[in-house]
Amino acid sequence: MAEIFLALLHHPVVDRNGRLITSAVTSLDLHDIARSSRTYGVRAFYVVHPVPEQREFARSVIDHWHIGYGRSLDSRRVEALDLIEIVLDLDAAMAAAERAAGRRPEIVHTSAREEKGMSFAAMRERMAAQDAAPVLIMLGTGFGLAPAARERADLALEAIRGAGDYNHLSVRAAASIILDRLRGR
Amino acid sequence: MAEIFLALLHHPVVDRNGRLITSAVTSLDLHDIARSSRTYGVRAFYVVHPVPEQREFARSVIDHWHIGYGRSLDSRRVEALDLIEIVLDLDAAMAAAERAAGRRPEIVHTSAREEKGMSFAAMRERMAAQDAAPVLIMLGTGFGLAPAARERADLALEAIRGAGDYNHLSVRAAASIILDRLRGR
Repeated sequence: MAEIFLALLHHPVVDRNGRLITSAVTSLDLHDIARSSRTYGVRAFYVVHPVPEQREFARSVIDHWHIGYGRSLDSRRVEALDLIEIVLDLDAAMAAAERAAGRRPEIVHTSAREEKGMSFAAMRERMAAQDAAPVLIMLGTGFGLAPAARERADLALEAIRGAGDYNHLSVRAAASIILDRLRGR
Repeated sequence: MAEIFLALLHHPVVDRNGRLITSAVTSLDLHDIARSSRTYGVRAFYVVHPVPEQREFARSVIDHWHIGYGRSLDSRRVEALDLIEIVLDLDAAMAAAERAAGRRPEIVHTSAREEKGMSFAAMRERMAAQDAAPVLIMLGTGFGLAPAARERADLALEAIRGAGDYNHLSVRAAASIILDRLRGR
């Protein structure tokens, strides 16, 4: 069964007007996606940010729960946050995932705007194969991954579809649905 | 097809030690669950809180995006927040849902601790029937719904299961997964 790695990118992503930006770290992204990751057996959750001060902020969010009062409050939260590794860019995430898995993961693109892309059912089946390659699933903050991120991907997943045309899920909700569709029971 | 109503309860819920509490409104719960609700065709999303000041706070979160600067920023966010109704208790949510649907909804209990409960597949099928009753799905904040909430339910859904025993999803993630399992394409 394919090992799953997640990478939450704060760059290159786009804003509401499609312009290339670097977004800020949101502490609740870290908590929510770490808890979903832990629930669905994700091997590591990379928080990717090019700015040192933002990486330090992400570190402080995690450390708050590791040290003293936070730790005693909620060990299950710590267990989830332990999956987080804070890295500079996608290359660093890939290098870490390759070290952990022993082989290079396939990079998977996800987007609410994806018009083609592999179906979740096909991807789930592919990942269930005995010798399936690990996958590193890219998630975009802001208004989603920039085209430069899609170019790095080995394959793209279809957009999540709900009941109508509206598909503006938060990245936290999208991450949980993607994991549930690929690995839920 | 059954109409879906969501109710996010801040009371009666439990804390990490299983004690009955009233939790505080979290603005990101409102945003995330409203966006997931809009994506999956939920008819109304009730934010349930017994404390007037907390209901006012919830109102201010919504109004921020309705008025002036916020509205111009992101109309899709407003479209989601428009699904929210802020109410005092479950009875008020039920009365509002009954008015909207023209018949009394079935109350559905959800919990990470649910050990029995109807499978998502069975519930989805049940809800797809032509004359299916509307459902009002209760979601718990804090560490989940208290036993008093379960007693109000007409039926319970099975707990969401991931890859192992860890199942501490955020309520935001759980809500999105529940909707996707019941109504996703």
